[in-house]
Amino acid sequence: MTKIITIPDLEQLIAQHGMQTFYRDLLRYLKEDFARWDKFHKIPRIAAHVPNGIIELMPIWDDRYYSYKYVNGHPNNTASGHLTVVALGCLADIATGYPLLLSEMTVLTGIRTAATSALASDLLAKHGVTTMAVIGTGAQSEFQVLAHRVVRPIDTIRYFDLDPHTMLRFKKNMEGTGLHLIECRSAEETLIGSEIIVVTTAAPGHQEVVKDTWVKPGVHINGIGGDSPGKTELALAILKRSKIFVEFMPQTQIEGEIQQLTPQERAVHVRGELWELVTHQKKGRETDADITLYDSVGFALEDYSVLRLVRDLSQIYNIGTVLPIIPELSDPKNLISLLGGHHLS
Amino acid sequence: MTKIITIPDLEQLIAQHGMQTFYRDLLRYLKEDFARWDKFHKIPRIAAHVPNGIIELMPIWDDRYYSYKYVNGHPNNTASGHLTVVALGCLADIATGYPLLLSEMTVLTGIRTAATSALASDLLAKHGVTTMAVIGTGAQSEFQVLAHRVVRPIDTIRYFDLDPHTMLRFKKNMEGTGLHLIECRSAEETLIGSEIIVVTTAAPGHQEVVKDTWVKPGVHINGIGGDSPGKTELALAILKRSKIFVEFMPQTQIEGEIQQLTPQERAVHVRGELWELVTHQKKGRETDADITLYDSVGFALEDYSVLRLVRDLSQIYNIGTVLPIIPELSDPKNLISLLGGHHLS
Repeated sequence: MTKIITIPDLEQLIAQHGMQTFYRDLLRYLKEDFARWDKFHKIPRIAAHVPNGIIELMPIWDDRYYSYKYVNGHPNNTASGHLTVVALGCLADIATGYPLLLSEMTVLTGIRTAATSALASDLLAKHGVTTMAVIGTGAQSEFQVLAHRVVRPIDTIRYFDLDPHTMLRFKKNMEGTGLHLIECRSAEETLIGSEIIVVTTAAPGHQEVVKDTWVKPGVHINGIGGDSPGKTELALAILKRSKIFVEFMPQTQIEGEIQQLTPQERAVHVRGELWELVTHQKKGRETDADITLYDSVGFALEDYSVLRLVRDLSQIYNIGTVLPIIPELSDPKNLISLLGGHHLS
Repeated sequence: MTKIITIPDLEQLIAQHGMQTFYRDLLRYLKEDFARWDKFHKIPRIAAHVPNGIIELMPIWDDRYYSYKYVNGHPNNTASGHLTVVALGCLADIATGYPLLLSEMTVLTGIRTAATSALASDLLAKHGVTTMAVIGTGAQSEFQVLAHRVVRPIDTIRYFDLDPHTMLRFKKNMEGTGLHLIECRSAEETLIGSEIIVVTTAAPGHQEVVKDTWVKPGVHINGIGGDSPGKTELALAILKRSKIFVEFMPQTQIEGEIQQLTPQERAVHVRGELWELVTHQKKGRETDADITLYDSVGFALEDYSVLRLVRDLSQIYNIGTVLPIIPELSDPKNLISLLGGHHLS
């Protein structure tokens, strides 16, 4: 039987397992899966360009599971009280092709994006970092803070957003974490003393949310918001001072910050893919003065990892709604019997 | 909120609406959608070739809906008591990208395949046909008979399968339809007096389930079982005597009976796509002696049509399970609030 994970199911799962434990486990699952990079069949996401936005299918598979995510991006949805991005995920058994888990994926996408950033920070940032800058306090921001606490002894968050309401929400949601929350008056101000910088803004077009002169040697930057063609957040000069790592080069060069670079520049500044850091095939930070940049766009493998974790935990805690959405038949050819005789109606 | 249609939900829906009415409506929906062929964005199915079979995603969209089907094909699944093919479908709103309906699709695939065949028969077979041959009485066979009753005054079914158990099941399921059921001892015998011939066998490889010499002028053939590379059911010579119609040429030439033809032969014998018959842009049968062949492989548009119908009927009858799998938020940036404060855990 296929298990469905709703939003309340996920809430219950996090409540029982604990958010920090969930992030710790997810980082482990991500590392395991990135370490098996060449075992995965990776294809570009399948994009449907529709009048108000985009709809994508993101499949990936190895010899154990097939996972896919349905996800949209409709920037004007907020006008009608809808989210701009919602998602559904599915994890299926490779051996039989049977779907095992069908899950809400809107929240899980937020969680896995932050966890992958924290993984990048763990692999690239200096040790002992205690202060983190959060530029853009939208839907992704709280997840970033929570995930980063697992990999570094963060005690101080310096944050800024153009929208005061959004900053207030961030502050309220982060109260109770015990973190020292410093409200800043500009993006520049968040960078003072911050050695991990998370940039996650929603502004369309090529922005310079972070200017080159603000960036001190030694920092690690997670560039999250530059995640589609034509949308970037970082000044080009920063990229040219950075050792850049990406998830999956064929995708990131179209969607990430590095779309600002020429192929020649990419060859110099993009040092590798995340899995090459996980497997120690590439070096990340080499000196305390290095600027490192993780150029995040989101990749199907991260959905695979989080769905795998949710499936495992949903079994441990017996969470989820089991629905008869896949037939069970003693005689597989008797498909019509599933209509209970009503085919004669 | 997203509505889930389980197998029992579908059973209830058919019970309330009636199977014949369902088929009549589905034929109408199919005709409407095939008539708008050029309004659809059509891409080849996205196939994952996995050790025991295949897993596919089949998306299609127009300016109203985006639909996709997840479907597998694992020939050896029966050994472990599983179905060889199971499927899930999703219908989403193009304007917002929100999933509207998440449905069982194993049974619906059986239903829509038969309905599309009946549509082809309606467009290609002689009028007044009363006798129909069914060769291969597997999972698809009963659906074929029921769908065809809507388009022709069928009163007699001549049927055959290599497996006597399967023939018995077919007979039991079709008792109560009022049809005259004639059990035949060979495929050849089913053809006597039959003017619509449905061939739907599961045998792998290139078979000659139907031989050329058996086929009389004037018949219409629905070739259903030849639906993947290397799998065909009809003698090549039959194809060369037929006016052939397909769903979507780029797909059928790889998967259908016509994979047996050279490109030059295809140019002669394949007369067009189904939508061209629906819109009267192509002629189908021109004389009572014509042999017509619908070479079915299954196409995403048919999933779209049946999902659209199921959604409409599920609203009329208030059927389905509404689950909170997509977030509802007054502040779309407050994604973490969906964890109910447990992010601090």
